[in-house]
Amino acid sequence: MQPNIIVTQASTQPAAAQPVEIVERKGIGYPDSLCDGIAERISVDYMHWCRAHGGGLLHHNFDKVQLVAGEVDIHFGGGEMLKPIRIQIAGRGTPIMADGRAIPIDLIAINAAKTYLRQTMRHLDPDRHCVIDCFAGRGDPQLAHTVAHITANDTSIGVTHWPLSSLETAVLNVCHHLNGPLRAQFPIGEDVKVMGTRLHHEVMLTCAVPFLAESVPGLAPYRSLKTAVQQAIAARAAEYTALPVAVYLNMADDGAAGNSYLTLTGTSGECGDDGAVGRGNRITGLITPFRPASLEAAAGKNPISHVGKLYNVLALQTAQAIVAQVTAVQQAQVFFLSQIGQPLDRPLTAAVTLHLVDDILGTAVANQVEEIVRYQLAHIDHIRDGIVNGTIPLF
Amino acid sequence: MQPNIIVTQASTQPAAAQPVEIVERKGIGYPDSLCDGIAERISVDYMHWCRAHGGGLLHHNFDKVQLVAGEVDIHFGGGEMLKPIRIQIAGRGTPIMADGRAIPIDLIAINAAKTYLRQTMRHLDPDRHCVIDCFAGRGDPQLAHTVAHITANDTSIGVTHWPLSSLETAVLNVCHHLNGPLRAQFPIGEDVKVMGTRLHHEVMLTCAVPFLAESVPGLAPYRSLKTAVQQAIAARAAEYTALPVAVYLNMADDGAAGNSYLTLTGTSGECGDDGAVGRGNRITGLITPFRPASLEAAAGKNPISHVGKLYNVLALQTAQAIVAQVTAVQQAQVFFLSQIGQPLDRPLTAAVTLHLVDDILGTAVANQVEEIVRYQLAHIDHIRDGIVNGTIPLF
Amino acid sequence: MQPNIIVTQASTQPAAAQPVEIVERKGIGYPDSLCDGIAERISVDYMHWCRAHGGGLLHHNFDKVQLVAGEVDIHFGGGEMLKPIRIQIAGRGTPIMADGRAIPIDLIAINAAKTYLRQTMRHLDPDRHCVIDCFAGRGDPQLAHTVAHITANDTSIGVTHWPLSSLETAVLNVCHHLNGPLRAQFPIGEDVKVMGTRLHHEVMLTCAVPFLAESVPGLAPYRSLKTAVQQAIAARAAEYTALPVAVYLNMADDGAAGNSYLTLTGTSGECGDDGAVGRGNRITGLITPFRPASLEAAAGKNPISHVGKLYNVLALQTAQAIVAQVTAVQQAQVFFLSQIGQPLDRPLTAAVTLHLVDDILGTAVANQVEEIVRYQLAHIDHIRDGIVNGTIPLF
Amino acid sequence: MQPNIIVTQASTQPAAAQPVEIVERKGIGYPDSLCDGIAERISVDYMHWCRAHGGGLLHHNFDKVQLVAGEVDIHFGGGEMLKPIRIQIAGRGTPIMADGRAIPIDLIAINAAKTYLRQTMRHLDPDRHCVIDCFAGRGDPQLAHTVAHITANDTSIGVTHWPLSSLETAVLNVCHHLNGPLRAQFPIGEDVKVMGTRLHHEVMLTCAVPFLAESVPGLAPYRSLKTAVQQAIAARAAEYTALPVAVYLNMADDGAAGNSYLTLTGTSGECGDDGAVGRGNRITGLITPFRPASLEAAAGKNPISHVGKLYNVLALQTAQAIVAQVTAVQQAQVFFLSQIGQPLDRPLTAAVTLHLVDDILGTAVANQVEEIVRYQLAHIDHIRDGIVNGTIPLF
Repeated sequence: MQPNIIVTQASTQPAAAQPVEIVERKGIGYPDSLCDGIAERISVDYMHWCRAHGGGLLHHNFDKVQLVAGEVDIHFGGGEMLKPIRIQIAGRGTPIMADGRAIPIDLIAINAAKTYLRQTMRHLDPDRHCVIDCFAGRGDPQLAHTVAHITANDTSIGVTHWPLSSLETAVLNVCHHLNGPLRAQFPIGEDVKVMGTRLHHEVMLTCAVPFLAESVPGLAPYRSLKTAVQQAIAARAAEYTALPVAVYLNMADDGAAGNSYLTLTGTSGECGDDGAVGRGNRITGLITPFRPASLEAAAGKNPISHVGKLYNVLALQTAQAIVAQVTAVQQAQVFFLSQIGQPLDRPLTAAVTLHLVDDILGTAVANQVEEIVRYQLAHIDHIRDGIVNGTIPLF
Repeated sequence: MQPNIIVTQASTQPAAAQPVEIVERKGIGYPDSLCDGIAERISVDYMHWCRAHGGGLLHHNFDKVQLVAGEVDIHFGGGEMLKPIRIQIAGRGTPIMADGRAIPIDLIAINAAKTYLRQTMRHLDPDRHCVIDCFAGRGDPQLAHTVAHITANDTSIGVTHWPLSSLETAVLNVCHHLNGPLRAQFPIGEDVKVMGTRLHHEVMLTCAVPFLAESVPGLAPYRSLKTAVQQAIAARAAEYTALPVAVYLNMADDGAAGNSYLTLTGTSGECGDDGAVGRGNRITGLITPFRPASLEAAAGKNPISHVGKLYNVLALQTAQAIVAQVTAVQQAQVFFLSQIGQPLDRPLTAAVTLHLVDDILGTAVANQVEEIVRYQLAHIDHIRDGIVNGTIPLF
Repeated sequence: MQPNIIVTQASTQPAAAQPVEIVERKGIGYPDSLCDGIAERISVDYMHWCRAHGGGLLHHNFDKVQLVAGEVDIHFGGGEMLKPIRIQIAGRGTPIMADGRAIPIDLIAINAAKTYLRQTMRHLDPDRHCVIDCFAGRGDPQLAHTVAHITANDTSIGVTHWPLSSLETAVLNVCHHLNGPLRAQFPIGEDVKVMGTRLHHEVMLTCAVPFLAESVPGLAPYRSLKTAVQQAIAARAAEYTALPVAVYLNMADDGAAGNSYLTLTGTSGECGDDGAVGRGNRITGLITPFRPASLEAAAGKNPISHVGKLYNVLALQTAQAIVAQVTAVQQAQVFFLSQIGQPLDRPLTAAVTLHLVDDILGTAVANQVEEIVRYQLAHIDHIRDGIVNGTIPLF
Repeated sequence: MQPNIIVTQASTQPAAAQPVEIVERKGIGYPDSLCDGIAERISVDYMHWCRAHGGGLLHHNFDKVQLVAGEVDIHFGGGEMLKPIRIQIAGRGTPIMADGRAIPIDLIAINAAKTYLRQTMRHLDPDRHCVIDCFAGRGDPQLAHTVAHITANDTSIGVTHWPLSSLETAVLNVCHHLNGPLRAQFPIGEDVKVMGTRLHHEVMLTCAVPFLAESVPGLAPYRSLKTAVQQAIAARAAEYTALPVAVYLNMADDGAAGNSYLTLTGTSGECGDDGAVGRGNRITGLITPFRPASLEAAAGKNPISHVGKLYNVLALQTAQAIVAQVTAVQQAQVFFLSQIGQPLDRPLTAAVTLHLVDDILGTAVANQVEEIVRYQLAHIDHIRDGIVNGTIPLF
């Protein structure tokens, strides 16, 4: 059965033309993002272990990881961890390969979490600051069976849009900038958060940026650093939007020394903020409450049969391909709905909603778009490979 | 400063007029829903304890709870738990009341989880089937401070719509029906899931309904029960939509006895499905990927200062008030954006987007709507009280 | 090969004739004793489950249980648990019966712990006051194999003496009296500890007895109760020894209200005292540092092949039989040394050291004693049965 | 009040003259020994932290640590951990220094455990092979108070003997030899166990020595290595006893490849054997069931007020001083009994029992011995310092 592909023209105005826009990004050091990253890394390392030991891809699902905040004693000039961060890995994997060899799930998972934290956080040492434990179980045989056939494991959807609006681009890039050049230039932690709001023609970026306590000797330098970072954010944001941008930084500061936003390890998970998978950024790297979006957590799920993961990536890549290849298209929103038990390349329906540059949707464009959708579906295994290789960002 | 209230007319067609609609509800026994319920119950019980011991409402946040699936040996006629379900409570609370009395956070939390499970699940015994542990920490003094002033604890949003579409109503009510009259009539568990899809004029309900193993002696009775439940669902759905409805039940069954969807305790958390807070239903009780929605988990957060919780409830109650009181309005979408550090009744902006019955938005209606928004804001403490009393559903 | 049985006459004086004697008993509510009791109950319940489900006795070892103290807020008149007691069960069991049926080890273990606590402690509710988790693993196949042959699993010893000295009898009975009639008469907890010292002809009993906070309204009644309990102890002790006995009660009390020894649940595990298996009483129910004794924990080990358990019971029963049946014998010390891999009824050596009433050891007595040893060895399965049935005290 | 010092002559024959002797030593890699070592290291590191941060010695007690065995897949030539070893630290410490500074108890404890394992085990990596968690609580204020006065915290005893018998020396030195020169020469793990038995004039050493799987390619080399190690043990043992010695090695081996005693990490804690504090060697480094001995675990207790720790070391050092300084003494057994609430240098009684070289106990020797006891008591703070500095072995 051929998938039902529906191509329509959007009846609404693009996001940028609406009176209000809200966009948020939780940086890579935000506790929820750390959990997303750990979950995905466990999935990838599990698959790599099986391959390295002569096995194939096995059913697994590691999309539940909980970070329980530690406790820290912190002040200008330094500080000390008082209680470790607890990372509780749940999920399940097939415990035995086809040749009977046992898979060390717990050890793969714990090690993956540590590797991810080491590669992501410069000041958080998983061995010194964290207690990481794995409670993962064995796969439900019923689901394992479904995997063997590589059919959709659920009735689920993937949906996203492309391109990002100016505000979305600004939020995403400011966040990347903070965790890139600015992190090298200023003593800031990885746990940044940027919320962008546009009311008509005014943009406001509310940013939370922790400063590394041991590099900030007192309140005066803290304030100077804040001003410098604020200016750098404003400069970066101006590259993405022509609208006036007001930047607010660490709004919970109240001027008193005790309420400055300091960090020892780079993440608020050190004290007070727990984290969990699927509570942060969507597949675009953003939280966009006014955009259609799946609530499914992509991170940690297996990329073999989990449509909640695959179809979201598929939707994004399809939208990107449409916008790249069809010049008439200004914006595309792509939606896939799986049929449980059917092959992954045969969704129940695929729907594309287009904002066109200056035209009415004609047959030529519709056909071209439909062709792109078919092509993407036919090559869905590329997405699986990209996920296995860790080259596709998921949050 | 008066809040900026924007009332506009929607440029889009209502959901029901669009070609595709997707709606999902995870029933109360679904692992994610159990975590939501436990988290909220901990918050409520924590507040009640403080009140009962002469204190006021204290800062807390219990919006992270993880359920790690157990293991079960199950077959037609019965079964046995092999490994307990692990429930890992995170979060934090103020540990000491103003009078210096210590608050038994861990015990309140664990007991709240048990109470919730006992009231929600008929066949899951928290003492026999679960290991419940609490890892909650102490509140960050900085946030505690913010709470004392009862100002918004974050730049956050609340957004929702009212009324529900026919499909949304159908999904919600089928799910309630399964966990109500049908549960009394048939041997089914609380962990039901209903996904509704409408493609143009055809509605499809894909339902997952576990059957209680000890009441189903074999495959033949299982099939008969499935047929009966399927018919009951179809009948119930027909009350909410005039469109033809196809009902699919337990699509992962493949006809073999081993793949029937059986349960011992009523939840798939007994074997194979983990759960977490904030991964399930939104404030409307539904997951609606095409509707504007907040990603914030409402469950478990304190209702004193957490705008991610309060503003979502506020948005829903405001939309309901508008639809109830303004006859010209067919559908209202309401949105609140907080200002961190400002009083809760002074959001940065409030935006209402209206679908009108048959008219253009005039000043009279706009004023009437604006008045309702003001009234709701002025009475936001009613929402807090409702949450403290447990009378406002959150998922 | 016949076991090597050595019967000799003691060259030392009996304990009661030596200048110093020290004897201690940790009551049933002492944290170490609770761990012993839980460990043994897990072993028994595991065996009963296997039998009830048509299986035989399987290899297991649950002789590691750790109790992590909780926290309590306590005062005259009452109190409240602040943090639960954590009970961490280790050990291992064979996970699958011969017929392939999975054994729910974790659930058996957790339930056994709760059952034991409920039967032992009147004021400690395992569901409300404790978090009990099981970390037990699977048996080492190598050891499982050894079990199948029912041979000694280790080179190990059993050694004990009979009868108890006056001081030993006094300590044991005072402790039983506290946890019996006195517990019914006075508001005291189960976590009593009695240390008896005899220096030449003076006996000193140092007792720690917690009083139930909610039944003791203040310091004055506390003092009255202490006096009454002290007198009751002295009266009881006088039944077992003709020597003058000084009784000291709750010596850490310093007269200030804050330092009275109060309890909420009956055990100091509620606040401050951890527990572990094998750290308390030996097979006689006593700690006797000047007597030969095995360091092996008897509690929790399987009674099929674990000589560290079986040979200690065997030694005690043999000593008791000798004293009961051979009138010439005043005291017997019995010692068995296993040979790993050999049948249990063939120890490498058995040595009996006798104190005779008034005689030199002659052949007739030696033969009679040797006969009793042989008989006990030949009926070692009675000991196993007694342990499986829970009728043999181990601590 | 002067302590009551009793010096008497032993009525028994020395151990070596009795028909049966049993002595056991659990090597440093044995799970119980690992727990002892970790517990003691936590205590030491906790005290060092307090000193390094300007504080004094604070009340603490870390004498409960539980090791839950992991799982390993092992074979000639190598293997892999399947499940990590869990190390569960209990106990309690004063959480705050006098100057109000918080003490990071959990982090000190976890780090101490890792440091100890790294220094003790060559093939066990605490970060890769273990999950180490700390459940330690806060000290009971009542006990903290007692500490401040540096008085005995309990009615407790210390008792030991010196010198060791030939058999005891042989067992101790064979064990040290295995964990010293032999470990450098042969691929063996640290988890060795030596049990020595003497029946009249025949000595039997039953040794368990794990071989490192990755250095042993098959059954034939395993057997050759066993023979070589067995001979090395026999040679070493012959240096300490003139009696004929039979050495048995790895008696659970049954000739089949699957039952060879292999290890990946050096300890049987990797698979099947749990551990706990206080279940292994006494203060002499040996388990000697026929010798008077305290059941108190010395490891992990604070050396400020814990008589169960201090008096055992004191007894050993006093016995050693007596034997070294009084030529007439062949063997000394020393015993101290504390008075709760009294200064540590004022025990209720001290008793010394002497075996003399060839004489009757005269006043001169008795006075000399009494003088040594007084001197040792007067310098008990040297013992505390030695323990704080980690120079006194405890197990």
